[in-house]
Amino acid sequence: MSENGFAPRGDKKEIEEGGLFAPKFDADGLMPAMAIDATTREPLMLAYMNAESLRLTLEKGEAVYWSRSRKEIWHKGATSGHVQKVREIRTDCDQDAIVLFVDQLGEGACHTGRSGCFYRKIEGPEGRLGFTEEGLRFDPGSVYGKS
Amino acid sequence: MSENGFAPRGDKKEIEEGGLFAPKFDADGLMPAMAIDATTREPLMLAYMNAESLRLTLEKGEAVYWSRSRKEIWHKGATSGHVQKVREIRTDCDQDAIVLFVDQLGEGACHTGRSGCFYRKIEGPEGRLGFTEEGLRFDPGSVYGKS
Repeated sequence: MSENGFAPRGDKKEIEEGGLFAPKFDADGLMPAMAIDATTREPLMLAYMNAESLRLTLEKGEAVYWSRSRKEIWHKGATSGHVQKVREIRTDCDQDAIVLFVDQLGEGACHTGRSGCFYRKIEGPEGRLGFTEEGLRFDPGSVYGKS
Repeated sequence: MSENGFAPRGDKKEIEEGGLFAPKFDADGLMPAMAIDATTREPLMLAYMNAESLRLTLEKGEAVYWSRSRKEIWHKGATSGHVQKVREIRTDCDQDAIVLFVDQLGEGACHTGRSGCFYRKIEGPEGRLGFTEEGLRFDPGSVYGKS
């Protein structure tokens, strides 16, 4: 067991082909985690996990992130009710990134009131943004309070 | 225009609700980019882009990343032929992450010989890894050379 509570990092072969989860965190102790709606396969949000939030995610079966702005453990939906129930959690070849397939409870994942955070596509090399969904799914003010 | 060639960052409202792409890079000048197969909706890989690789991605319509290990621009597939044709590119509410919906050319995205890098699910709180695809799609040695 390594200091972060997970298996120690082995050699390249063990990391890529092995059956032990030995996650690699960056210099800040974080790893990107992409949440995807398990049913619609829409990308919901990209956030970060530290070792503790990753452990909590595995224990609870609900997405727990590390809030970089608030510098605290962030159990998604704990206040808004917009909990993400984890159906499947994956890691990649290097074991330095996470994908979560989730059932998104409530109206949406994004604090702006949308189903997910990736609601704009980048159009043309000059980078105009086009919206992929019209209007809001919920009133962010009433769910999250004034921002 | 800001120094990185994209629109300058506005206030929170402009960033979240505006129509101008004003990407935010981290302290290392990077941003995570998640590539998803546009047809199967399988997550393919999570890599990083700097401003130049993001500009090149928008110009070429093919995924161009920044290789953190080689510290160079990485036009995915330039040597392997496993190019990612971008069908749609999105950003999130904070404009600090990218999702690419791509047509993956060749046999797969992952240097291990698999269709994508997220070929293992994490099972149980103790973190055993289970494989989501059996065998390899291609011989990594013949595509990428000995590693």
